[in-house]
Amino acid sequence: MATHKLLLLPGDGIGPEVMAEVKRVIDWLDRRGLASFAIEEDLVGGAAYDSCGQPISEEAMAKAFAADAILLGAVGGTKWTHVPYEARPEAGLLRLRKDLQLFANLRPAMCYPALADASSLKRELVEGLDVLIVRELTGGVYFGEPKTITDLSDGQKRAIDTQVYESYEIERIARVAFELARTRRNKVVSTEKHNVMKTGLLWKQVVSEVHGSNYEDVELEHQLADSCGMQLVRAPKQFDVIVTDNLFGDILSDVAAMLTGSLGMLPSASLGGIEEVSGRRRALYEPVHGAAPDIAGKGVANPIAMIGSLAMALRYSFGELAAADRIEAAIAGVLAGGFRTADIYSEGKTRVGTSGMGDAILAEL
Amino acid sequence: MATHKLLLLPGDGIGPEVMAEVKRVIDWLDRRGLASFAIEEDLVGGAAYDSCGQPISEEAMAKAFAADAILLGAVGGTKWTHVPYEARPEAGLLRLRKDLQLFANLRPAMCYPALADASSLKRELVEGLDVLIVRELTGGVYFGEPKTITDLSDGQKRAIDTQVYESYEIERIARVAFELARTRRNKVVSTEKHNVMKTGLLWKQVVSEVHGSNYEDVELEHQLADSCGMQLVRAPKQFDVIVTDNLFGDILSDVAAMLTGSLGMLPSASLGGIEEVSGRRRALYEPVHGAAPDIAGKGVANPIAMIGSLAMALRYSFGELAAADRIEAAIAGVLAGGFRTADIYSEGKTRVGTSGMGDAILAEL
Ligand SMILES: CC(C)[C@H](C(=O)O)[C@@H](O)C(=O)O
Ligand SMILES: CC(C)[C@H](C(=O)O)[C@@H](O)C(=O)O
Repeated sequence: MATHKLLLLPGDGIGPEVMAEVKRVIDWLDRRGLASFAIEEDLVGGAAYDSCGQPISEEAMAKAFAADAILLGAVGGTKWTHVPYEARPEAGLLRLRKDLQLFANLRPAMCYPALADASSLKRELVEGLDVLIVRELTGGVYFGEPKTITDLSDGQKRAIDTQVYESYEIERIARVAFELARTRRNKVVSTEKHNVMKTGLLWKQVVSEVHGSNYEDVELEHQLADSCGMQLVRAPKQFDVIVTDNLFGDILSDVAAMLTGSLGMLPSASLGGIEEVSGRRRALYEPVHGAAPDIAGKGVANPIAMIGSLAMALRYSFGELAAADRIEAAIAGVLAGGFRTADIYSEGKTRVGTSGMGDAILAEL
Repeated sequence: MATHKLLLLPGDGIGPEVMAEVKRVIDWLDRRGLASFAIEEDLVGGAAYDSCGQPISEEAMAKAFAADAILLGAVGGTKWTHVPYEARPEAGLLRLRKDLQLFANLRPAMCYPALADASSLKRELVEGLDVLIVRELTGGVYFGEPKTITDLSDGQKRAIDTQVYESYEIERIARVAFELARTRRNKVVSTEKHNVMKTGLLWKQVVSEVHGSNYEDVELEHQLADSCGMQLVRAPKQFDVIVTDNLFGDILSDVAAMLTGSLGMLPSASLGGIEEVSGRRRALYEPVHGAAPDIAGKGVANPIAMIGSLAMALRYSFGELAAADRIEAAIAGVLAGGFRTADIYSEGKTRVGTSGMGDAILAEL
């Protein structure tokens, strides 16, 4: 049996708590002989800054390059508001994304029928919702230069960020979106602001070209980012796959996630290209939710998105489909059994904390 | 009685249809002697391009500078997808905003109780909703240079947009937000991505400074733009005033508008600074909705947002409070009377078209 090199980066806030539950699931898989892991663990984000003055250490980066897949908890928190910009917690995550070239961020927004009432939208609009946001993750305004603040006269300052996209960056993410659409409902909505941004104009052109070159069997629609935000709120079930840039993807995927009413349930994958020689694809899996410092350390966070991220890793990086199925079935079973953390609690259900949810999932397994 | 110089720019799509209803209301005010207008009219957007090859002519710009206020319908449409970038319909609107220095875009998202069921959100989450988005309108990625597409080798291209903010631009919009909050529920949420953008970092700093210097009686909270998008969907009533940059404001105000379920109802104002000598404040009023080319020419568009834009002009530019009150009361009366255009129609109500809604409002007046 292949041994999978897995790097755990719990990070900040509720990250360590939810990662603790993943470790129990990993142990269980190991003990049962269902999958075999070589686990490494390290710090990222504010936790790394506190320990070594950097949001990710060179050692941790080396482990990341050596790993077959990475599981990350969350980074950030008000505690680090005043650290130097280059050393802020988020810079650790951004460096992982950039250095490992994890350009394709897959963010599914699915509404579990058992949880449809937790949505702020009317049940009929979200029940059965299954949207996949494909977000470009290594380009755009996140990484473009210049990115500076300069002093002018009279105490005034000028801040600059730069959004840059080259054709190849758009081509490869468009291909990912079309390929994924073929495994789903065969529809892609591409989102930008071509009416005010040149990057949006190039985005639209290149996506259309990729579509015409090889994917005409997939339905393609272009929507402006502001319209897309509206349509997500108005009628989210019209969407199958949405492909968009780094910044719009950040906002729209959070809006889409919140529509489901179960943010604590949603895993995500950040994938690199397939490497020519090894055939390997670098990958990082993390919950869509953030570090939630307000509830950190209280044992109330929902570990399902984090455990679901492990299932995604088993499926997409390790090819361990049976193990992935088992975990996903256990999550569904636990929900059907009425177990709920605070974020998805509703009357008449059994309220559990982080480790209580972990217990329930292990019992179900 | 003062004569108000008002420039009408109907624009594209449903713009001319909804503007036609405004003209009837203006006539009514004039005939009744409730307000006196000197009306000019001109083209903007695709309509202007078709007539003179530019998205706004120099003559129209001169009229805009001479006017006390401008009413604009909407610009854009797929018909002009292939016109040169500098001449696209949106460039006309952007030039008006920039040249007149209309830096403060006020976008109220209000949920009329009679229409709460038209929202995709649960009634209790949106009933009585009253959020004001204060969007910076003359800076950021909309206008920053470089803004280019260049050819690289191998047919590859590189597109660049630049987001620039200087302190003074953030100061003046922050002040508008705090002043408006004082007339409302005294709470401002400032929204940016300081964790990835230098403009976001400067934004947060400057808003905090303006707050500390003169507005400590107003409650201030900072939210990341992605979180803000989530919170708008989860619990929109937590917000009073949201202040944000041009691009985030574009998306978040559309999301907020859609929450109300009555996009066709929402007017907006774009204001300049108060001029030293004349004491005048330049202003453009327009519906939040777009040109909606799919329903243009069918006589079904909702004219209320456009008529509400006239009411806003009467109130904020002309000081004609009585006339503004009359119009707003007529709109409320017509809704209470059960008249509905297609976009807000629900069973048991009286369905009317664009001019039918105009008739009803005039009858109510
Ligand atoms: C933590 C932050 C840098 C990050 C981002 O903006 O990409 C987060 O919001 C996300 O969506 O993964
Ligand atoms: C038409 C377009 C240029 C404009 C914008 O992006 O600002 C519109 O979406 C708006 O919000 O007024």
